[in-house]
Amino acid sequence: RQSCARIADHPMFMRVIISLIILNALLVGLETYPFIANRYGDFIYIADLVLLWIFTIEIAIRLIGAKSIGSFFRDPWSVFDFIIVLLSHVLIGSYYITVLRIVRVLRVLRAISVIPSLRKMVNALLLTIPSMGTIMLLLGLFFYVYGVVGTTLFQDIAPEYFGSLHDSLLTLFQVITLESWASGVMRPILAEDPSSWWYFVTFILIGAFVIINLFVGVIVNNVEE
Amino acid sequence: RQSCARIADHPMFMRVIISLIILNALLVGLETYPFIANRYGDFIYIADLVLLWIFTIEIAIRLIGAKSIGSFFRDPWSVFDFIIVLLSHVLIGSYYITVLRIVRVLRVLRAISVIPSLRKMVNALLLTIPSMGTIMLLLGLFFYVYGVVGTTLFQDIAPEYFGSLHDSLLTLFQVITLESWASGVMRPILAEDPSSWWYFVTFILIGAFVIINLFVGVIVNNVEE
Amino acid sequence: RQSCARIADHPMFMRVIISLIILNALLVGLETYPFIANRYGDFIYIADLVLLWIFTIEIAIRLIGAKSIGSFFRDPWSVFDFIIVLLSHVLIGSYYITVLRIVRVLRVLRAISVIPSLRKMVNALLLTIPSMGTIMLLLGLFFYVYGVVGTTLFQDIAPEYFGSLHDSLLTLFQVITLESWASGVMRPILAEDPSSWWYFVTFILIGAFVIINLFVGVIVNNVEE
Amino acid sequence: RQSCARIADHPMFMRVIISLIILNALLVGLETYPFIANRYGDFIYIADLVLLWIFTIEIAIRLIGAKSIGSFFRDPWSVFDFIIVLLSHVLIGSYYITVLRIVRVLRVLRAISVIPSLRKMVNALLLTIPSMGTIMLLLGLFFYVYGVVGTTLFQDIAPEYFGSLHDSLLTLFQVITLESWASGVMRPILAEDPSSWWYFVTFILIGAFVIINLFVGVIVNNVEE
Ligand code: NA
Ligand code: NA
Repeated sequence: RQSCARIADHPMFMRVIISLIILNALLVGLETYPFIANRYGDFIYIADLVLLWIFTIEIAIRLIGAKSIGSFFRDPWSVFDFIIVLLSHVLIGSYYITVLRIVRVLRVLRAISVIPSLRKMVNALLLTIPSMGTIMLLLGLFFYVYGVVGTTLFQDIAPEYFGSLHDSLLTLFQVITLESWASGVMRPILAEDPSSWWYFVTFILIGAFVIINLFVGVIVNNVEE
Repeated sequence: RQSCARIADHPMFMRVIISLIILNALLVGLETYPFIANRYGDFIYIADLVLLWIFTIEIAIRLIGAKSIGSFFRDPWSVFDFIIVLLSHVLIGSYYITVLRIVRVLRVLRAISVIPSLRKMVNALLLTIPSMGTIMLLLGLFFYVYGVVGTTLFQDIAPEYFGSLHDSLLTLFQVITLESWASGVMRPILAEDPSSWWYFVTFILIGAFVIINLFVGVIVNNVEE
Repeated sequence: RQSCARIADHPMFMRVIISLIILNALLVGLETYPFIANRYGDFIYIADLVLLWIFTIEIAIRLIGAKSIGSFFRDPWSVFDFIIVLLSHVLIGSYYITVLRIVRVLRVLRAISVIPSLRKMVNALLLTIPSMGTIMLLLGLFFYVYGVVGTTLFQDIAPEYFGSLHDSLLTLFQVITLESWASGVMRPILAEDPSSWWYFVTFILIGAFVIINLFVGVIVNNVEE
Repeated sequence: RQSCARIADHPMFMRVIISLIILNALLVGLETYPFIANRYGDFIYIADLVLLWIFTIEIAIRLIGAKSIGSFFRDPWSVFDFIIVLLSHVLIGSYYITVLRIVRVLRVLRAISVIPSLRKMVNALLLTIPSMGTIMLLLGLFFYVYGVVGTTLFQDIAPEYFGSLHDSLLTLFQVITLESWASGVMRPILAEDPSSWWYFVTFILIGAFVIINLFVGVIVNNVEE
């Protein structure tokens, strides 16, 4: 156990793992180019298997080197690493090449758990989420009400955008990002129903107002700390 | 009165009402799907009636349990609940199914008045509105002047966008959200009137400047408090 | 002089002028609707003349009521009122109806000089301009360099967007507002010149970086005060 | 050396150089207009040569006037000036007129190194870059993972947007600027693969969340200083 702990804490160990993650990222990136995938597919497949086993050994060393199995699994980032490597083993025989590749690229996310500054930053970002809980609930309520109203009003006029409740919610997400909300969504509806402008204008005004306040709240919270 | 007040203040009472509001929201959402509305329409209609009467009893309990009728109606959220339930009763016989559904979905907004954290947040959001009064007046003036100028200049060139004063105001709202302001609105006009760029560029620059200052003002106000 | 000063400072005087400005705004707005302009054109013309003469008398009263002519013209808002009314008289016989209407709508802007809270806010907004001088110079330099480079590179590929230096500057303004920068401007150019993406990506990244810093600077300045 | 130092520090020297840079900018701008380039091409060519030699003499004076050659090259802005002038000499015989013009317009950027307030501002802007290092690394990782996933999923459905990894990265940059992300990119893909919405929605939500936090971090950092 002692020797495993010593290896796991050695700065060289981390550097090697980071290099291998970068190598994994490069392989996964190169594999998306068909002419490379066709010619070097076998090589990439083997390199990938080797990398997977090295990462498995890495997790094993860190697991053995931990004070206890419990203390290893109490660190969410260790659990994250464990699940990603486990998933790679489970899905290795998957029939769908797409699933395989996506699992492979998720291993690149292990850079977050391995590089301390990235892990610290992501932890900080995740910590700001709970403080946004109530405003997210409010935004959800606001989207749901506008989604039902939009589906009721525009289901027949614009089936592409408001054909069903889930279509409407996606369209409202598009509208709140201000993407083609007028030229693409509102103006064709306006031609059929000249009073529909209030639906879009109030949605954008209220939505922008709530989101700006959410944003201001995050800034003010940060300044106070 | 005492027993009504005890019921109204009981945490169980609130939890039941929240559950029923969620149920109301689900029914209203499911109803937007034609195949569900056709098959279970009667069931949804009855469930909706039952919910409406439960909400009516809820309001009655809270009204009787209040210190006085005046104190009940002095709380804007109680008035909000009262009006929404009253509106449901008044419009229940409405010929237009669209009106019925919109009244039903507005009942979902009662979640704001029933869940304390949401009510607190919406109160806080509403409190920031008065401080934006002057800048809203300024923005309104700015929109009005540009609306009249735009209608005068581009009425004949682009009747879809600047055909009348209210069309122009809607187009200016689209322009200030930066949605297709160049590709959709300005470039076709520019082909007819090569000097029209100053209208759009100054509108965006001044508008962005005022809105950013409005935004900065809200942030600074919040930091100060 | 004394009685003029007393009239000019009377709260009733201000209220009357504000009402007349609102009336002026309404007339100017109604006039943009052809069916109203055709039917009530003569009435609006006369009402406009009457309003102009009332505003002229107002300025005269304030000018006479001022401590001295110099002190009147030292207040930029008085000069603003004076110029707008003077312009109305000078251009009254203008052949171009468009010019006439724009001068008339500019009189609505006098609301800013007459309503104290608006005047105060606009003064505050104008005061933030000098602190943005250097960053505006930097942005200008940045636009100019990218404008010349864009004209040189894409003049023949995309004459609509980069045909001449002033076309390029307008296109760059469109790009910095992120309006159709990819779908409208970059992708057609990319089809001809596959390396042109760096031009747009660096322009947006540097531009956004400078503008965000400009924005942050304004916030920080405001918080400090 | 002493007299060179005296000349280089003289305010008149700076003013002359600024004027010449403005002249250089004007020439480079005028040259983009074909009818001017055709008629006055020779004059502009000669003026440009004269300006280049004046700038060369300026750099020489500042180099000789410096305490030592090392102290001159230790100032990054002096190196910047030196390289730009050197590049102009090296590329003067270039066959490609485009390269020539771009080098010429880069000389306009010398305004930054010559005008103290601009140099100070750019220095301040550059100083904020290192503090964004970790978040840039995180954004890069995030883009790379979504780029590989997008290429894997949509390579065949939308070759124009996700045909190869570098196409995907450019498309993701377009998506994060919210430019036609729905109307142009997502909706055509959605028609083929109805579950693809999660790819775009999660990308925008996570991306916006990280970028807003980056932005908030910069503001908070600035307020603290
Ligand atoms: Na946009
Ligand atoms: Na757009």
